Amino acid sequence: MKTFADKLLDAIDAKQNISCVGLDPDIQKIPPFLKDEAIALFGDTFEAVGHAFTQFNKEIIDNIADLVAVVKPQMAFYEKYMVPGIIAFKATVDYARSRGLLVIEDAKRNDIKNTAKQYSDGHIGLVELCSGKKVPAFNVDALTVNGYLGTDGVAPFVEDVKAYQKGIFVLDKTSNPSSGELQDLVLEESKLMVSERMAQMIDKWGEGTEGERGYKSVGAVVGVTYGKDGAVFRKWMPKSIMLMPGYGSQGGAAKDVIPCLNPDGYGAIVNNSSGINYVWIKDKMPEDFGARAGIATEKMKVDINAALKEAGLLKW
Amino acid sequence: MKTFADKLLDAIDAKQNISCVGLDPDIQKIPPFLKDEAIALFGDTFEAVGHAFTQFNKEIIDNIADLVAVVKPQMAFYEKYMVPGIIAFKATVDYARSRGLLVIEDAKRNDIKNTAKQYSDGHIGLVELCSGKKVPAFNVDALTVNGYLGTDGVAPFVEDVKAYQKGIFVLDKTSNPSSGELQDLVLEESKLMVSERMAQMIDKWGEGTEGERGYKSVGAVVGVTYGKDGAVFRKWMPKSIMLMPGYGSQGGAAKDVIPCLNPDGYGAIVNNSSGINYVWIKDKMPEDFGARAGIATEKMKVDINAALKEAGLLKW
Repeated sequence: MKTFADKLLDAIDAKQNISCVGLDPDIQKIPPFLKDEAIALFGDTFEAVGHAFTQFNKEIIDNIADLVAVVKPQMAFYEKYMVPGIIAFKATVDYARSRGLLVIEDAKRNDIKNTAKQYSDGHIGLVELCSGKKVPAFNVDALTVNGYLGTDGVAPFVEDVKAYQKGIFVLDKTSNPSSGELQDLVLEESKLMVSERMAQMIDKWGEGTEGERGYKSVGAVVGVTYGKDGAVFRKWMPKSIMLMPGYGSQGGAAKDVIPCLNPDGYGAIVNNSSGINYVWIKDKMPEDFGARAGIATEKMKVDINAALKEAGLLKW
Repeated sequence: MKTFADKLLDAIDAKQNISCVGLDPDIQKIPPFLKDEAIALFGDTFEAVGHAFTQFNKEIIDNIADLVAVVKPQMAFYEKYMVPGIIAFKATVDYARSRGLLVIEDAKRNDIKNTAKQYSDGHIGLVELCSGKKVPAFNVDALTVNGYLGTDGVAPFVEDVKAYQKGIFVLDKTSNPSSGELQDLVLEESKLMVSERMAQMIDKWGEGTEGERGYKSVGAVVGVTYGKDGAVFRKWMPKSIMLMPGYGSQGGAAKDVIPCLNPDGYGAIVNNSSGINYVWIKDKMPEDFGARAGIATEKMKVDINAALKEAGLLKW
């Protein structure tokens, strides 16, 4: 059976695109006509926000589904609206999967062993009903995880990765300006940065998850904003796929992806959220937000593939 | 206006108890009669699980509300059941607050600045509706946070701590066996462990959150399982309150809390989840699960206060 990494690489080949679209709905940035429609239906409620998010995301997905392999909804934007937010999140996941997209849930979950298992059950595994029967819940393809707690906090996720052909991406070097405060500190004994030590752990956590195409389904989050240092991390985890956020509005560029790729041209996916979802604001075209997102996605594909070609890494 | 830390210390004085009860409902450990009732009402569904969780928690809360200052529901156990889980979580939070308890949501949320703000909005701040109006959502008193991403990932939470008299507890030295894999590593320049460096950052993040009683509303998670080393962490964050999980089933004991306390007898709260919620299993008394939880909570109070008295730290 194909692993998550196999499915992801196959989908990348099919779309000839290593980029990923973030689905991070922010009510302040949803086109006004969608908010008006939602208020008309549900009043000024959490339900209205959830409805607007779902409508917004479906239109985005319709415009990008033929272009990318994978989408990344960020749970923070949904769960803040409690029940209607969770409904919108699940509707988004299900719609994306119905359009043939893989879904990485960005939730950065983490806890000690037994509690981490609850997160894993819900997001990538199975949950138990009153009768003892087990069924899937969120059922995303992959989940982001924070590894600060060490092996026993990550192991339950890895078990589900293996059991259900799912994936996880463990935070390694995050895209934000402050990431170095802890992640760049050098360790006394190994002379490695904390993020390099984390990369070693991520490599180890992925043992036994290698698929037909050689890649592991335990990947790493490495900000494209720090992609120029990507070889540092790649060295410690040669067969982990890097999920690289920070393209576009955070400052990451196509050329910054290159050092993270293996000589085979694989090993990274590059996420853009605001630069796709909210390009309508810059373009002043609220009614065409979906089409503008599609155009921005196409442009990102062209830009990244040009950088890959220049580096001799374009496979298609 | 009183800060979270002020409210917590006042409540500790009122109950003469520094312990905290975890509310971590696990369907495998819910008394069979509650599951049967839930299936009769809702069938073998997620709704049934959510109903059983709510009934279970209300009974636990009724039996401990006069004994403790604070409860700590662990979000992982709820969100795995999606909408019914979120409903049960919110019902639990609201019920606990209606019984005069402070509520610490254990969710270990973390992300980059703008995304961390979404989490903070939802859990301890305000969320925006379609009209732009802002209202509270989960509205817990405090939230656990993972600081791996550094200052800009924690700052949005701290802003809400200050604006709405809320609290956060940032992971420092977690209670699990693997926590040392990263947290115990010694840094080259400072010769401090990663967890000591994190303690320094927690202290800094808490600046400006000091309340009338001198404590900060930015606290730290330090496992009581490592409490004997508590002075190491206390040194770097003298006025941060430590949330100490791991009492009881994880192996933490009353004496291990002492090194974490300040000479004034304050500075830590000690959490027990399984040893309170599921004492009915050991006692083989499913019908009396609530009363057994109350007795176990009383015993924990007596044990911890005896250790405080022996150390000359009992205030009441």
